Amino acid sequence: MNIEMIRAAADRLKGHARVTPLLSSPFIDHLAGRRVFIKAECLQHTGSFKYRGGYSAVSALPEDLRARGVIAFSSGNHAQGVALAATQHGVPSVIIMPSDAPRLKIENTRALGAEVVLYDRATEDRDAIGERMSQERGLTLIKPFDEPQVIAGQGTTGLEIAEQARAEGIDTADVLVCCGGGGLTSGIALALEAEAPGLRARPVEPKDFDDTTRSLAAGSIQRNASMTGSICDAIVTPSPGRLTFPIMQRLCGPGLVVTDQEALRAMAQAFLRFKIVLEPGGAVALAAALNRRDQIEGDAVIVVASGGNVDLEMYEEALNTLKP
Amino acid sequence: MNIEMIRAAADRLKGHARVTPLLSSPFIDHLAGRRVFIKAECLQHTGSFKYRGGYSAVSALPEDLRARGVIAFSSGNHAQGVALAATQHGVPSVIIMPSDAPRLKIENTRALGAEVVLYDRATEDRDAIGERMSQERGLTLIKPFDEPQVIAGQGTTGLEIAEQARAEGIDTADVLVCCGGGGLTSGIALALEAEAPGLRARPVEPKDFDDTTRSLAAGSIQRNASMTGSICDAIVTPSPGRLTFPIMQRLCGPGLVVTDQEALRAMAQAFLRFKIVLEPGGAVALAAALNRRDQIEGDAVIVVASGGNVDLEMYEEALNTLKP
Repeated sequence: MNIEMIRAAADRLKGHARVTPLLSSPFIDHLAGRRVFIKAECLQHTGSFKYRGGYSAVSALPEDLRARGVIAFSSGNHAQGVALAATQHGVPSVIIMPSDAPRLKIENTRALGAEVVLYDRATEDRDAIGERMSQERGLTLIKPFDEPQVIAGQGTTGLEIAEQARAEGIDTADVLVCCGGGGLTSGIALALEAEAPGLRARPVEPKDFDDTTRSLAAGSIQRNASMTGSICDAIVTPSPGRLTFPIMQRLCGPGLVVTDQEALRAMAQAFLRFKIVLEPGGAVALAAALNRRDQIEGDAVIVVASGGNVDLEMYEEALNTLKP
Repeated sequence: MNIEMIRAAADRLKGHARVTPLLSSPFIDHLAGRRVFIKAECLQHTGSFKYRGGYSAVSALPEDLRARGVIAFSSGNHAQGVALAATQHGVPSVIIMPSDAPRLKIENTRALGAEVVLYDRATEDRDAIGERMSQERGLTLIKPFDEPQVIAGQGTTGLEIAEQARAEGIDTADVLVCCGGGGLTSGIALALEAEAPGLRARPVEPKDFDDTTRSLAAGSIQRNASMTGSICDAIVTPSPGRLTFPIMQRLCGPGLVVTDQEALRAMAQAFLRFKIVLEPGGAVALAAALNRRDQIEGDAVIVVASGGNVDLEMYEEALNTLKP
């Protein structure tokens, strides 16, 4: 895993992934006590940064292997990113989703061209289903984060941040990244190491699901006690990855932890001040900028707003935090 | 009024106005029956394209005149655009607003550095107040649309559209523009004439406030019967301007008209598919792309999403259209 892989992914993604804007607002600067710059990855194709990793992985496959198709396990953003990337390459994709996943995400994944295979979480073994289908059809598994070409794709976000920060005159800052398994965080960290060494990536996680923060503090991989109970579903993973953790350990600053309520209030501020739609898991980094100012260094901070695939009911709950 | 003024405005705006992205979604393409590209001006500073015109006008003033300050009449987006532009130039701004304007817009305008002067719509004459303050302090009036340097600033949106459309391989398309007094529409039309002659600007207006559409059809300036009763407050004006109308008459295709309900549903689609926040007046162009497909030509259409400064209650009403 190295910067050359990220640069190569950027070449493959050129003209496909969107260069997302870096947004700012004097109102948010005031609330946060420093200048805040938002990398709006919710505006990426399929509504999250996951399209970068999906496209990077699919495009990196040898042609004959790619032609047989790809397979992924996901109930959310990775599913949509892989599905669209496969469709754009004209190859089949199979996405294995729990039958109780939100109907909208199932429908979206299908509409993006994937064959969706539903399984019952209680009675069926998704790995066995995936293994069988892979072998029968010669499908290549695209893992959501612990996969070099996926990390390389997510890292292209970091190349853009380096260039956009330079244009804003920022050479020293913390870069807060919403963190699940660490694919985005480690990819950005590698890109910044090469292109903007004064910028330091830091993972941000929801309270009680702070496996990466605790792993960085302990110096070894720690696991979450539970996988359910957070509204930040997009970034709840059992632990940082075997590939992603050593990169984060070498390059990242300490993790930050926010509450669900802080994530909801950050979504509301993003609505009000940036005119972008965030999901809870895509808003934790902004929540940290707004609520953990004493734990952040420097007079500017960069925040990755990683996704916006939120259900209507959850979004209304976020907007309700604006009411007196 | 000519393309050189728009190019000069683009030079002044460089590094200040944001180059807003051109977004797309396969779901919206499907709904609209053709490829749809959204110019997301809601992501502009202050949440609408009005910052471009405000900054263009303030920056074009001779230095001694500018130092005395500027004045504007506005209850909304123009107010915020002029206020921020003046503050960035280090000069005072006075914004005259009706005392019944939404409190949030008054507070925002003040927070952006303006001196807000409130007047009572029923008993006070805002023009007289403005005239007196201008004379006493030597303030320069910045009109919202019928002002060459304002049109030039809005026209920079058209320069970006021309370049972004070229990058997408689009050389022929209708460009739908949310239209009030015609500053944005006429500015874009002039830019496209010079830079992308296969792209044709077309104004979009709310039902019963379709003064520009009727003016283009009649060949002379027509007025709206009323100034109240639309949710699209940002684009309700009595009639197209004396400067903007002849430009639109020479360059624009026929106007399009949508209902308030269609605007609300377009806001909901923008939430769902583009992850951007639109106000009703900023969503009418998208509403036309989704609901007037037979009146639009070509296999691609470009839609200007002009602003996102929407009250919470109105936004909730838009989201409610997604519920079964």
